[in-house]
Amino acid sequence: MKPLYRGLASATRRKASRFALETRLDAMTTRLKDVGEFGLIERIRRLLPGAPDVDVIVGIGDDVAVLETGGGSYLLATCDCQVEGVHFLWDTTTPFELGRKAAAVNLSDIAAMGGAPRWALVSLMAPQEILVESIEELYRGLGGALAEAGAVVVGGNTAKSSEGLIVDITLLGRVAPEHLLTRSGARPGDVAAVTGTLGDARAGLELWLRPESGVPEEEARTVKRRYTSPQARLLEGQCLGRCGAVHAMLDVSDGLLSDLRHMCEASGVGVELEVERVPVSPALPAVAAALKADALAWALTGGEDYELLFAVSEKDFPRVADQLLQETGTTCRAIGRFVDRDQGLRLILEDGRRSSFDAYAGGWDHFKAT
Amino acid sequence: MKPLYRGLASATRRKASRFALETRLDAMTTRLKDVGEFGLIERIRRLLPGAPDVDVIVGIGDDVAVLETGGGSYLLATCDCQVEGVHFLWDTTTPFELGRKAAAVNLSDIAAMGGAPRWALVSLMAPQEILVESIEELYRGLGGALAEAGAVVVGGNTAKSSEGLIVDITLLGRVAPEHLLTRSGARPGDVAAVTGTLGDARAGLELWLRPESGVPEEEARTVKRRYTSPQARLLEGQCLGRCGAVHAMLDVSDGLLSDLRHMCEASGVGVELEVERVPVSPALPAVAAALKADALAWALTGGEDYELLFAVSEKDFPRVADQLLQETGTTCRAIGRFVDRDQGLRLILEDGRRSSFDAYAGGWDHFKAT
Repeated sequence: MKPLYRGLASATRRKASRFALETRLDAMTTRLKDVGEFGLIERIRRLLPGAPDVDVIVGIGDDVAVLETGGGSYLLATCDCQVEGVHFLWDTTTPFELGRKAAAVNLSDIAAMGGAPRWALVSLMAPQEILVESIEELYRGLGGALAEAGAVVVGGNTAKSSEGLIVDITLLGRVAPEHLLTRSGARPGDVAAVTGTLGDARAGLELWLRPESGVPEEEARTVKRRYTSPQARLLEGQCLGRCGAVHAMLDVSDGLLSDLRHMCEASGVGVELEVERVPVSPALPAVAAALKADALAWALTGGEDYELLFAVSEKDFPRVADQLLQETGTTCRAIGRFVDRDQGLRLILEDGRRSSFDAYAGGWDHFKAT
Repeated sequence: MKPLYRGLASATRRKASRFALETRLDAMTTRLKDVGEFGLIERIRRLLPGAPDVDVIVGIGDDVAVLETGGGSYLLATCDCQVEGVHFLWDTTTPFELGRKAAAVNLSDIAAMGGAPRWALVSLMAPQEILVESIEELYRGLGGALAEAGAVVVGGNTAKSSEGLIVDITLLGRVAPEHLLTRSGARPGDVAAVTGTLGDARAGLELWLRPESGVPEEEARTVKRRYTSPQARLLEGQCLGRCGAVHAMLDVSDGLLSDLRHMCEASGVGVELEVERVPVSPALPAVAAALKADALAWALTGGEDYELLFAVSEKDFPRVADQLLQETGTTCRAIGRFVDRDQGLRLILEDGRRSSFDAYAGGWDHFKAT
C-alpha cells in the first residue's frame, strides 16, 4: 500500500499534532507506562467485541491463537517482533543472527503448543539508508531457521520506518487437537518441570555489553550464543504434546518467575518453586562470578531462555522425562510443584526458608516505567 | 517476550554500532533506497529457500498468501502496517479512525481475493508515554471494523517502540477454491474495470494538510473521509469472485497505474487505459480546482483508494456489472482493455493521443529515494 502522506513534501508534515495536544492537556489520564503490558492486554480483551466464535479454540491471552479450520488439525497463529533499540542492537547481532532470532522466538511459541510450524508472513519496516545486503542477510537467517523447522515464508509486507529496523513475523502452524497444550491446565499436585538450562541468555547479553570482563573464552562464547542464537524446542514441544501426560506448557521468554506466574494464573493454581533445583549451565556460575552478578537471579528472572516449562502429574514425570531424553536428547528437570491457588506463588530458598515470588523483581513488562 | 537488552541501564547502550560502521565503510554497496520496494521483494523471493510446498497455493508476490489447510476452503493470510510518520500523523487521524483504517487496509486485501475475513492478530508497538485511552480507542475502531466484516481479534503482541506508534495487523480469511481470484489471470481482450471512484483519498489528504483552501464544506468532508475512513469492498469482492467470469483482481492501494502494472506483470499482458473513463466522484474536480491541482493525476496515481480493479471478458462485463450493482449497490466501470504483452502499458488520453504509463510518475515505492 502506498501511504499517501509520505508522498508529500516534508515541509507540510510539521504541524501541531492533535495527539501531542491531547498529551499536554490531559495530564490526569492514564499513560501506558502506568498500566503496563499485562494491564493493557486485559483492557484490550475487555473492550473487543466478544462475539462467540466456535472456531476460536484459544483466543487473546495465550501466546498463540488456536483456530478450527476443518481438515482434522488446528491452525496455530502467533506473532512476535524485533524492534531495533528495544529488542536488539546492531553491535550485539548481525543481520543474519537477527533473522534467525526473529524466527526462533516465533518458533518457540509454536513449540510451546506442541505444534509444527508451517507458514510465515514477514513484515519488515526499514530505513531507506540500510544496506540491501543487510536485509538479504536477515532474510537468509530467517528463511534458513524456518526451513530447518519445516516452515516457509509465504508473504509479508515491506514499509519504510521512521527510525530503526523492525521485523514482525506472524507464524502459522498446525497441531492435532489431541496433542494441543496451552498455559492453562496445570493441576495441584503436578510437577513443574523445565527443559535445558536457564539464565544463559541474560549472561550472554551482559557479556556483549561488558566484553572486557575476563570470562574464559569458552564460557563466554556459550552464553553469548544463547543470547544471539536461541533455538526453539520444537521436537521437545511435539514430544511433550504427544506423550499424553503433560497438562500445560509455555515457553520461558519473560523469565521463569514471570512465566510460571502466567501459567498459575491461567490454570488457577499456586506453585512452590525449589530454587536450588532450577537448572543452569556450567558456564553460568563462571560468568556470574566474573561479573560479580547473581547467577540465580539471572536464571529466575533473566528471560529470553526459550526453554519449555510444563506441568505433568508426579507419577508420569519419570516416564515423560525419559521419553523426552530418548527422542530429543534434551534433559528436563522437576523444579517445583503446583499447589492450590490459595497457597500462592512461593519460592523455597536454598536454606529451606520460603519467600514470595514478589521478593524477586518478577517478570518483564514492556511498558511499566523503569 | 522480554527483550533482555531493554532491561539494562541505558548508559550501556551507546556503543559504536557494527551496522553504523558497515554503513560508513562500504559506500559502494547498495542501499534500500536504490533498489526500491519491488526490487527488494524480488531479491527476497530469490534468496528464500524455494522448498516446494504443495500446500502453498499462492506465496510471495501477491498481497495475500493462499494456503491449503484441508476442510474444503483455502486459508488466506495477509499483513499490513500503519507506521506513525510514514502512514499517518496524529493531526489527520484520531486513534479510533486509525484503528478502523488499519483494519480496512487488510480487509481490502482479503476482499481482492474474493474472500471472507475471519481472524486477526494485532501487533502493537507503542511509546511508553502514550495515553492508554488512545490505545483503547484504536482497538475499539479496529475491533469494530473487523466485527462489521465478520472477523475477530484472536491474538497479537504488544511491545515498546523506540519512537512512534506502529500497528501491524495479520488478517486471516477463507475462500472457496472455486471463488479465489488473484492478480494473475488477466487475458488479452479482457476489459479492465474498477469499482467506485478513484482519487478522493489523495484529495482528502491534501485538504487535511491545507485546510484553508476554501473548498465547499460538503466536498471537503467527502474526500477527507475517503482518506481517513476507507471502506474495504468485501461484499463486492465476494460477488466478483462468485460470479465465475472475473479472471483477475486486486485492490487499488498503490495508485491505479501502479496496481494495473502489477496486474499486467503478474498476468503477462499489456493494457490500454482510457483516462477519460476513469471514474471520479463529483467532489474530486471541485477540490482539485480549489487547490489548483490535477484531478486526473490524483485518480491515476493517488493511491489508498481501496477500490477493486478486475479483469473480465468483454461479453460478460455487462452481466457482471449488473450483478454487482444488484447485490451490493456498487457501480463499476470499464476503463480499458488488456492487450498482448508486447503492446506494453499505454494511456489513451482525452484527445485520443497515446502515451506510456511512464509519462506519469507511476506507482508508489516505499524505499526509492524521493
